[in-house]
Order: sequence, then structure tokens, then C-alpha cells
Amino acid sequence: MNEADLIYPPDQITLREVGLRDGLQMVSQFPSTEGKKAWIAGEYAAGIRHFELGSFLPRHKYPAFADIEDIIRFAADLAEVHGAALSPNLRGSQLAMASGVAEVNCVISATEAHNQANLRRSRQQTLDEFAAIIALRDQSEHQPLVGIGIAMSFGCSISGTVDPEDVLALAAQLLEMGADIISIADTVGYAGPAQVAHLTAQLRDLVDGRPFGVHLHDTRGMGMANAAAALGEGVRILDASLGGLGGCPAAPRASGNIVMEDLVFLCHSSGFDTGVDIEKLIEVRDILANEMPTEELYGSMAKAGLPLILPDNAESVMRIS
Amino acid sequence: MNEADLIYPPDQITLREVGLRDGLQMVSQFPSTEGKKAWIAGEYAAGIRHFELGSFLPRHKYPAFADIEDIIRFAADLAEVHGAALSPNLRGSQLAMASGVAEVNCVISATEAHNQANLRRSRQQTLDEFAAIIALRDQSEHQPLVGIGIAMSFGCSISGTVDPEDVLALAAQLLEMGADIISIADTVGYAGPAQVAHLTAQLRDLVDGRPFGVHLHDTRGMGMANAAAALGEGVRILDASLGGLGGCPAAPRASGNIVMEDLVFLCHSSGFDTGVDIEKLIEVRDILANEMPTEELYGSMAKAGLPLILPDNAESVMRIS
Repeated sequence: MNEADLIYPPDQITLREVGLRDGLQMVSQFPSTEGKKAWIAGEYAAGIRHFELGSFLPRHKYPAFADIEDIIRFAADLAEVHGAALSPNLRGSQLAMASGVAEVNCVISATEAHNQANLRRSRQQTLDEFAAIIALRDQSEHQPLVGIGIAMSFGCSISGTVDPEDVLALAAQLLEMGADIISIADTVGYAGPAQVAHLTAQLRDLVDGRPFGVHLHDTRGMGMANAAAALGEGVRILDASLGGLGGCPAAPRASGNIVMEDLVFLCHSSGFDTGVDIEKLIEVRDILANEMPTEELYGSMAKAGLPLILPDNAESVMRIS
Repeated sequence: MNEADLIYPPDQITLREVGLRDGLQMVSQFPSTEGKKAWIAGEYAAGIRHFELGSFLPRHKYPAFADIEDIIRFAADLAEVHGAALSPNLRGSQLAMASGVAEVNCVISATEAHNQANLRRSRQQTLDEFAAIIALRDQSEHQPLVGIGIAMSFGCSISGTVDPEDVLALAAQLLEMGADIISIADTVGYAGPAQVAHLTAQLRDLVDGRPFGVHLHDTRGMGMANAAAALGEGVRILDASLGGLGGCPAAPRASGNIVMEDLVFLCHSSGFDTGVDIEKLIEVRDILANEMPTEELYGSMAKAGLPLILPDNAESVMRIS
């Protein structure tokens, strides 16, 4: 079994907390370093093992991620935890490799226009940079995984419709270049479940047993429906954030990441074991609320609590209210 | 083609606005009669044709529904509109029949405990009452449809797990008695999409071409995922309310009905035509906000607006922001 399969076991669903990166990119307040550690420790106690811990962006411009190395070290000390960090470019990837983080995440857009808007370079320039990043990985001592997310895979807020064939061709090229994990991202929440099922199935066939992820946003309320569709087509890795922390750049009042605690309920009700205790997870929302009192937290499980009995294809639990 | 098939065409998805009944049952404020009429007219202009208009409950205890006859007459004057009203008992059904409403909706619970708690009688007593209501229908001049909803079909906040076989046996019995339409209701939002798909498929096979409905609540955030699952298994009628108006009796801070405008987006993104204009629908939220300023309105489409282009299996539209 290769490294990626050890970290993302093929027979398990991996739920990855991305609030410390994708969430904090969109908030007006950010937590203290101690607050971040309490957040990670709380989710760890609830059973979460995969975290995107932050981003290697210039510190003076992105103070929310200035403590990224400290956070990476903290997470690495927790048994079984797999930490990832986003890198926007080669310089960021050099810092990420040096930090010892277990996975370096990079991003490219499905459309030229969004790649230019987001990364200020062409898709070809981004691909060239990936080649250099993958070479860096190959030369590095600890050989982190390189995960690449394809932004706007389901439609683009600049270019509109995205052809699934373009996304799949890009995914094939990235795998060929040596990327360990490909993720398709509904960056602005355009997708419905039919579209998610279709592209997930095609990517599953393309990756041919290698791990792949689906990164969904709940901007138009389709988050759980889309997650269910992706699960139905065999996705192995789903991203979410506690309380849905983080908004949407294209729609100021709208929500962003799908809600982790609701996603766990979806998985359990669909018969997938996650190892996560929903009630313990919900308690961690208090840390976010205290650290970022002006940020809205989303989600239904925190308000409603567990059902008296879970659906009959999952284990029985006590309700909290 | 029989009457029920004319009103709920077998080859179309019918989205039924239940906010005027299920929504107003749970709110602390209720709209004026003129406000209700503006609400209905607004949704009618957006393309909604099916409304549950209120409930025949004692007026002194339930003033929100005191104008039910007036509302029924108003809706009946709109071309193509099909109005329904809930009746909790034989007396309510007598009034409903006399009002000329096109459909009388009744409810029974999947569990004995909830039937007692909700209707203060046994399920057998409720079934006996249905027999009398169906006889009333057969003797009535305008022969309204009788729709029967099975509450707690996916789990009960009193009794816990519900056996799908019990729900199906009850549905078969109700059809045998002469009910025109059976609906299964996730009254307290316990279901996940796997469970909804399973029971919907079984009910679809049972009704053998007759219309049937699925009434979902979004209490635990599974509303859209569950609606997608029901659509995938051939449901013909889905209930929702504008802005998700109405809460959950079992979880005070939680949401209730699924959000109509988000459901329309789900349908369109899944390739189902609804005839509904989402942007016009969203505008009607202002009427609800003005009439019931303290009630929370839910939903994502109202915040995010339409995508730049809808997914490629649906028509192109302009985005609103």
C-alpha cells in the first residue's frame, strides 16, 4: 500500500477539517494561536484526524496564517493526525516542505479566467510551478503528499459553465505529473447533486483506485445533497468546516464550506462510519464562537441535536434534547 | 386520467407551498388576510400552483387560520391553482368539504405514541374517522381529493425508530380505504437520504402509478439531500415553504420545512422543470418579512442568487449579483 492509501484508507470516508485554512481565509476576525490549538484538540478529541492547518501566504498580508509553522508542529504531535497546508506558489511550497507538514495542497482553476484572477498567472504557468513543486517533494527528506485542488470544477463565477471534460483532462495531466491526490472543488457553490454525481463518477474512474477528494461549498444550499451524491459515487475524501466557518467571496452574505457536524450526521445516516462523535464536535463550536464572536456559525445539528434513534442503518444513540 | 392525475400530472414534479399551513402552525406572529393573499399572489406570479392554504382548527385557539374560507376562495379564483386545507378531525373535514376546497389533507402518525400526542386518539380511532371523511367526500358535490400524510414515517421523537414496513402497511390500508394521495412525512427531520430513497422507492412501488408525496423537514440539515433522494426515486409531490417558514416543535431553535426557493434550484439543477422563476419567488420573501418581522426566514438562494450559468443540464439564466 502506498503512502496516500495509508493516510486516506480506500475503504474509509475521510472527513477533513478545512476551517483553519478555507474558513480563516474568509473571516474578518481570526483566532489566537492558542485558540487554534484548542480548536484542533477539540476536534481531535471528537474523532477528526485530517486537518488543513493554514496557508503559506505572506505573513504581513495574511496575519491569520502567521503561526502556520507552530500549528503544523502542534498537529504533528497528535497521534494519527494528518496535517495539510495550502501553498499558493513555489515560494510557499518551499516553506511548506521545510515546515515538515505531511501534505502540501496546491490549487489550479478549471478556467483560465479564474486562474488569472485567483493566482495572477496563466494555467500553464501554474502547471509549470506544480512541476517544480513536485520535484521539490521528490528531493525532500519527508516526502509530503502533494494534493492539487481544481477550483471552479462545477462552474465558474467569471466564465460560467465549465465542461467536465476539461476538468477531467486537467486531473489526468496532474496525476501524470505526479500529484498524489486530486480534488474537485465547487468553489462558489454552483453545483447540484446530479452534476456532482456525474463528475465524481468520472473522476473515480480516472483515478483508478487512487484517493481523490470533493470540496463542496454550501453557498446555494446544495452542500449536503452534493455530499450525498459524491458519497454515492465513491468519493474517499470530503472537506468541511466546523460550523461552516467561512463565507463565499462571490456572495458576501452567503455561506461557504459545508458544515462538518451536519456532514458527519449525513455519513452516519448513510451507513458510513466516521469515528466522529457529533456531540463532542458540536461542543467545539464554543471555541470558535469565543475566538471569533462576530463570525456567523452555520449548521443544523448544533440546533437540533441527534435524533432519538439514528436511522436503522446506523448505530443507536441517545438524543441530546 | 383520474382527477388526482390531472392535478398532479404523473410526468411532472409538483412543488407544494405549505407555509400557509405548516409554517403558520409554528410561528408566533401570523400575517393579515391581505398579507396571505399577497403571499399567494406573489408565489402564483412566480409559477407556484399548489398551496396548502391553512387548517380547519378551532378559530379561538388557532386565530392564524380563522380566515381559511376567505383564503380558499381567493386561491380558487386564480387560474390553475390547486388549494388544499388540513383537517385534524371529522368536524374539520365537514367544514373543509363545505368550503369547496379542492383537497382535504388529513394526518395519521406512523407510531401509536405520536398519534396519541398529536391527535389525542388512537390510530384505530383516526382510521375510523378517515372512513367517515372519505364517505363525506363520496357524498359531497365537488368531490375534493383526500390526501393523507403519515407523520413520523422516518422516525419518531417519542418512540424512536420506525419500521418502514409499518409505514407501508399503513399506506396500503389508507389507499384501500379510498385515500387519493398518500404522503410520507419526516415530521421531526430524522431522516438521511439513504433512508428517504429506500422508503420512497417502496412507496412508489406500492402506489403503482398513483400520485404520492414526500414531506420533508430540514431540522438536521438533510432537507435538500433528502429531497434529491426522493426525486431520484420518482416522487411526484414535494412540500416546502418559502424561506423555510416554520420551526420544529421538538427542537425550539431548529428550522422546519425545507426552503422552497432552494428546492426549486435543486429541481432545476437536477433537470426537472418546475415552471417556477426563482428570482420572482425570492422577492415574495419581503411580504413574509413585513408581515412577520420576528420570524426567521431561512434559505441560501436568497443570499447567494442564481449562478452565472445553471448546470449544463438546465437552462441558462442570468445571475442576480
